[in-house]
Amino acid sequence: MNAIGVDVGGTKIAAAVVTPGGRILAEARYPSAGPRERLLSSIARAINEVRDGMEVGGVCLAVPGFVMTAQNKVVFAPNLHPIEGVPLKEELGQRTGLEVTVENDANAAAWGEFRFGVGSEVDHLVFVTLGTGVGGGVISHGILLRGAQGSGGELGHVTIQADGGPLCGCGNYGCLESLASGTAITRRAREVASEKPGSALGRIAVERRVLGEDVTELARQGDGAALSVLEETGTWLGIGLAGFVNVFNPEVIAVGGGASKAGELILAPARREMYRRARSPSRDLVEIKEATLGPESGVLGAAALARDGSGEYVLGS
Amino acid sequence: MNAIGVDVGGTKIAAAVVTPGGRILAEARYPSAGPRERLLSSIARAINEVRDGMEVGGVCLAVPGFVMTAQNKVVFAPNLHPIEGVPLKEELGQRTGLEVTVENDANAAAWGEFRFGVGSEVDHLVFVTLGTGVGGGVISHGILLRGAQGSGGELGHVTIQADGGPLCGCGNYGCLESLASGTAITRRAREVASEKPGSALGRIAVERRVLGEDVTELARQGDGAALSVLEETGTWLGIGLAGFVNVFNPEVIAVGGGASKAGELILAPARREMYRRARSPSRDLVEIKEATLGPESGVLGAAALARDGSGEYVLGS
Repeated sequence: MNAIGVDVGGTKIAAAVVTPGGRILAEARYPSAGPRERLLSSIARAINEVRDGMEVGGVCLAVPGFVMTAQNKVVFAPNLHPIEGVPLKEELGQRTGLEVTVENDANAAAWGEFRFGVGSEVDHLVFVTLGTGVGGGVISHGILLRGAQGSGGELGHVTIQADGGPLCGCGNYGCLESLASGTAITRRAREVASEKPGSALGRIAVERRVLGEDVTELARQGDGAALSVLEETGTWLGIGLAGFVNVFNPEVIAVGGGASKAGELILAPARREMYRRARSPSRDLVEIKEATLGPESGVLGAAALARDGSGEYVLGS
Repeated sequence: MNAIGVDVGGTKIAAAVVTPGGRILAEARYPSAGPRERLLSSIARAINEVRDGMEVGGVCLAVPGFVMTAQNKVVFAPNLHPIEGVPLKEELGQRTGLEVTVENDANAAAWGEFRFGVGSEVDHLVFVTLGTGVGGGVISHGILLRGAQGSGGELGHVTIQADGGPLCGCGNYGCLESLASGTAITRRAREVASEKPGSALGRIAVERRVLGEDVTELARQGDGAALSVLEETGTWLGIGLAGFVNVFNPEVIAVGGGASKAGELILAPARREMYRRARSPSRDLVEIKEATLGPESGVLGAAALARDGSGEYVLGS
């Protein structure tokens, strides 16, 4: 039986029918703008449109925010306020006739990589996504670690530089997110650009605001300033990953998200620093790799987390 | 059916027969000194002596070091070198006729608190032990997180102050262990004593080497210098715990080990700092408590991790 995964983002809703093997049979997209009622009806429309008469066993929504999985409610979603507190199982169940569950988007993406992507051969996977923020999800012993309420896997706000670290969006100092996100890369790139005005990075900064893509492109062209930014970011990332290696003893750490497009320019220093800080035998086993599903990890993971009426995963586990 | 738990420490071996309800029926102790052969025969003797004709379903050894649980081998045990690499299942199986398994001691203690102690009512428990070092173990969704090799749950070597943190025994800087262990307390106490020679702590330091117990006792008597050391330690502990709260969304964090005897003098600041750094709803749910089993968590947890011939826990799960 197939299942539907819905990736409810801050700007768009993507719904897909997914097979037990992880193939996407159909997709639908809607904007996610508007107040509560419009948002709910867009989600329902995406589900009903993509379903298009096919038999599906259930649907799961992946949502960027703090989710209480037992209640199928979103507690806090800074980029999607209208969805907060809505009883999604009931509201969307009525409009679609399907069994509806809700998960945090990074946990869903982690599960997608575990079922169909870079983690499909292992039982222990840590997934880290480097975007505007740093998100994550952990599969240990084949189980998605949701925690007691469904809020587990918040890897971005572990502290790695308590004293003197940069201010994070969450209000604290020195979170992994404040040092290794896409946002951290551009902030650091602007600092380095002004320290090294003669570098290619410095020359761009005179003309316009430096973007994350600029840093990656200039680093690939060999600009030392841009390279140093990614090297530094990778090192901070490695400090955080070392902690996860010690705690989870995973087989694979998958790194996804926009900033992971820098690939080895970030992953090589991350690997080096992880190895320096983590313990044996965990550090010897783990492989740090790029995630392979890209932006589709959300719908794929959500579909794989859809449950049927008896609470079983529709696509198996 | 009962099971035997063996706590193999750096100085002594404690074996106990434990009931499914967590009651200790008999105990035996031997020194753990000596080369490999003597150590193995002391462990076997402790098991056979404590068993004393009783029917038991299996035995588990809790060992301070890095354990590969699938192989039932200890990879690295800085305080118990002779045990490294020994095929314990076979060696001790022959001498006792019992099914033998091996676990890391902190993971076993965590499981003890989960089955019979402060975590017996919950499904999600983080256990942290503050002794010479900082050890730990995690139960998530009712499962002990051993990781791929059995080396998971190494909570003491997550980095919380990468740049400028103190040197840790593991060779890195700013591990949780370097800032919140019993060793960190005495190191900091000696520093504070020399900064504040007029304090009660300072006056003791003139006479002799300050010990961890001195700090707790003087803090209870209201000495500001000693109080500040525990407050600072608790704050660092809270920074580490905040990360675990974000990652595991646990119901309870249990703090054990010698330094936890300072109780609220450490736990109150730890709770405050955790709440400041962790995210909702996880930080609102979690309770930070003292562990309740004390030094017996080792044998109790080990017994509860003993398996029968078919791989099931003898005492249930």
